[in-house]
Amino acid sequence: MTRRPGAALDPAALAQSVRAGDRRALARAITLIESTRDDHRVVARELLDLLVSASGGAIRIGITGAPGVGKSTFIEAFGLALLAMGQRVAVLAVDPSSPVTGGSILGDKTRMERLAQEPGAFIRPSPSGGSPGGVAHRTREALLVCEAAGHDVVIVETVGVGQSEVAVASMVDSFVVLLQPGAGDELQGVKKGVIELADLIVVNKADGENEKAAARTRQQYQNALDLLRGHAAGWRPRVLCASALAGSGIRQVWETIGAHRRALDASGEFAARRRRQARSWMWSLVEEGLSAMFRATPAVAAQVPGLERDVEAQQLTPAAAATRLLDAFRSAGR
Amino acid sequence: MTRRPGAALDPAALAQSVRAGDRRALARAITLIESTRDDHRVVARELLDLLVSASGGAIRIGITGAPGVGKSTFIEAFGLALLAMGQRVAVLAVDPSSPVTGGSILGDKTRMERLAQEPGAFIRPSPSGGSPGGVAHRTREALLVCEAAGHDVVIVETVGVGQSEVAVASMVDSFVVLLQPGAGDELQGVKKGVIELADLIVVNKADGENEKAAARTRQQYQNALDLLRGHAAGWRPRVLCASALAGSGIRQVWETIGAHRRALDASGEFAARRRRQARSWMWSLVEEGLSAMFRATPAVAAQVPGLERDVEAQQLTPAAAATRLLDAFRSAGR
Repeated sequence: MTRRPGAALDPAALAQSVRAGDRRALARAITLIESTRDDHRVVARELLDLLVSASGGAIRIGITGAPGVGKSTFIEAFGLALLAMGQRVAVLAVDPSSPVTGGSILGDKTRMERLAQEPGAFIRPSPSGGSPGGVAHRTREALLVCEAAGHDVVIVETVGVGQSEVAVASMVDSFVVLLQPGAGDELQGVKKGVIELADLIVVNKADGENEKAAARTRQQYQNALDLLRGHAAGWRPRVLCASALAGSGIRQVWETIGAHRRALDASGEFAARRRRQARSWMWSLVEEGLSAMFRATPAVAAQVPGLERDVEAQQLTPAAAATRLLDAFRSAGR
Repeated sequence: MTRRPGAALDPAALAQSVRAGDRRALARAITLIESTRDDHRVVARELLDLLVSASGGAIRIGITGAPGVGKSTFIEAFGLALLAMGQRVAVLAVDPSSPVTGGSILGDKTRMERLAQEPGAFIRPSPSGGSPGGVAHRTREALLVCEAAGHDVVIVETVGVGQSEVAVASMVDSFVVLLQPGAGDELQGVKKGVIELADLIVVNKADGENEKAAARTRQQYQNALDLLRGHAAGWRPRVLCASALAGSGIRQVWETIGAHRRALDASGEFAARRRRQARSWMWSLVEEGLSAMFRATPAVAAQVPGLERDVEAQQLTPAAAATRLLDAFRSAGR
C-alpha cells in the first residue's frame, strides 16, 4: 500500500486494502468517512458502496455507562478475552459531547493501552464535532467498514449521559449498560431512559468489599426490569455481576450476548431487526435531508421565529403556523 | 343558538357559543374538528384561531390503563368527585384502534352514565378512524376547545395498549397509569414503555380481598420507579392505591396531581413544558406535512420499493439510497 494522499483517495484501492485487513487502510477509511469536506464525502460514499456487500458479518454490541463505572477497563478486559477466543475486535467510541478534538471519552491517553497494542484489535475514538445525528450516521458507516475489514465483534461505546444511546441501541444487536454496585439512577449517573434500552446490564466492580453490594444491586435491577419491561421477542433482559479488575464474569457476559443472539435468531427477530435498522437508517437520512432543505428555504426561515413566538404565546394554533410554513416551502420552488 | 346547519358553520358564532359554555356548541365544534371534509377543515381552523387565546387554563390529565383495570369506573368516580369540588370536567377518549364508528373504548353504551348526565361534565368518545397521528392532533385541538369552553379539568383517556400513549403524555400536564393489584406488565396488559411515562400510578380495585395485594403491588412499582426513573424536574413519580368502587383514594389522586402541578410550577417546568408542547406540536405537523409531500411525489414514490429492497439486502448503503430519493424530490419541483 502506498502512502501518497492521492492514492488514499482512490476508493477502489482503499476498499481492497480494507477488505484485506490492513489496519492503516481501515483507519484511513474511517477518517475519510468522518471528514466533512465535500470531495471526501463523495469518495467516502463510493468507498461505502464498494464495502457494503461485505458488511453485516459481525456481532454488534453497544456498551454504555457513566464516567467512573470502569467502562474502559471493562471493555479492555472484555476485548482481550475475545481476542484470546480468536475473535477480531473493533471498538468505536461515540461521544457527541466532546469538543472538536479529543473529548472526554478518550481524554485519558493511556486508555485501553493493552487492547490497542493487540494486532487483532482496532480502537477508534469518537468522530469529533457535528450534530449527535451526524455523529451517529458516521458511526454507523464506520461500523460497516470495520465489518468489511473482517472484525468479528464491533463494540460501539457511549458515555450514557448524552443523546446518542437511542441511536447506538438502534444500530447494534445487543445493548449493554454498565453499572456499579449501589442502586439508583442518580448514583449511577445514567440518563433517564437509557436502562430501558438494555438487553443486558452488567454490575461492574463486583470484587472485594463490593461483592455483596453488587449482588444486591444485581437483584434489585433484575426485579425492576422483570416488573417493568416484560419479555420482548423472547428475551428477558438479564443483569450480571462482573469485575474487570479480577477478570470475573467477563466470559459470562460474552455467553449471555451469545444467548441473546440465539434467542433473536430463533424468533426470526435477528434478520428482521437488521433489515429494519437498514431501512429506518435510510428514512432517518431522508428526514434529516428534508428538514435541512426545509429550514434552509429563505421564505421558511424568515417566518420561523415569529411563528414559534406566536404559537408559544397562544396567539396562533400550531396547525395554522405549520400550514403557513408548509405553504411558504411549497411556493418557494426547489 | 340556532340549529340550522349553515349557522353551525359560522366560526365566529360557534366560537362565541363555545366560550359561553354551551355544551351543544362544544359538541358541534369538536365534530367539526374531527371532520375530514375539506370545507369543514377550513372552518375548523378559523374556529380554532378564534378560540386559541382563550385556551390553556385547564389542568390537563392523561389517564391510561388496559381493559379490565376499571378505567371507566375510576374516571367516573374521579370526575364526580371533581364536580363535587366545583370543577367543570371534560373527558376526551383516544382510541386509534377503534373501527370507524363506536370502538372498544366506548363500546359499552352505559359507560360513565352518571358522569355524562351531570351538567358540569362533558364526555366525548374517540375521533373515529384515521392515523394515530391524525387522531392525536384532533384530540389536541378538542382539548383546546374544551378549555376555551371553560372546563377546569380536561381528562384525555387512552387504552394503554396502542400507539397513542406517547402522544397523549406529550399533550397533558400529568400522566396517570391505572393498574390493578398483582404485578408484571404481562398481567397488566399495558404496552411496554407506557409505565415509563407515568407521573403517577394508581393501583385501582384496592378494596376487600384485594387490599393487601394492592398495597404490595404499590410498593413493588414504587421501588421499581425509584430505581429506574430518578427525579425529573423535582418530581418523584408516585404510586397510590385507590378503589373507584369503595370511593377510597380518589381525593388523594387529585391532591397528588395538585402536588405534581405545584412541583412543576415551582421549578418553572410547567410554563416551559406548555411552550415546548405547543412548539413541538407545530413542528410535528410540519414534519407530517413534509413527509406527505415527499411520499406523494411520483418520482420519489416510484423509487421507494426498489431502494428499500436494495438497502435491506445490503446491496446499497442507506446513505446512497437516501441521496437518490432526496435528489428525485429536489428535481421534481413542487
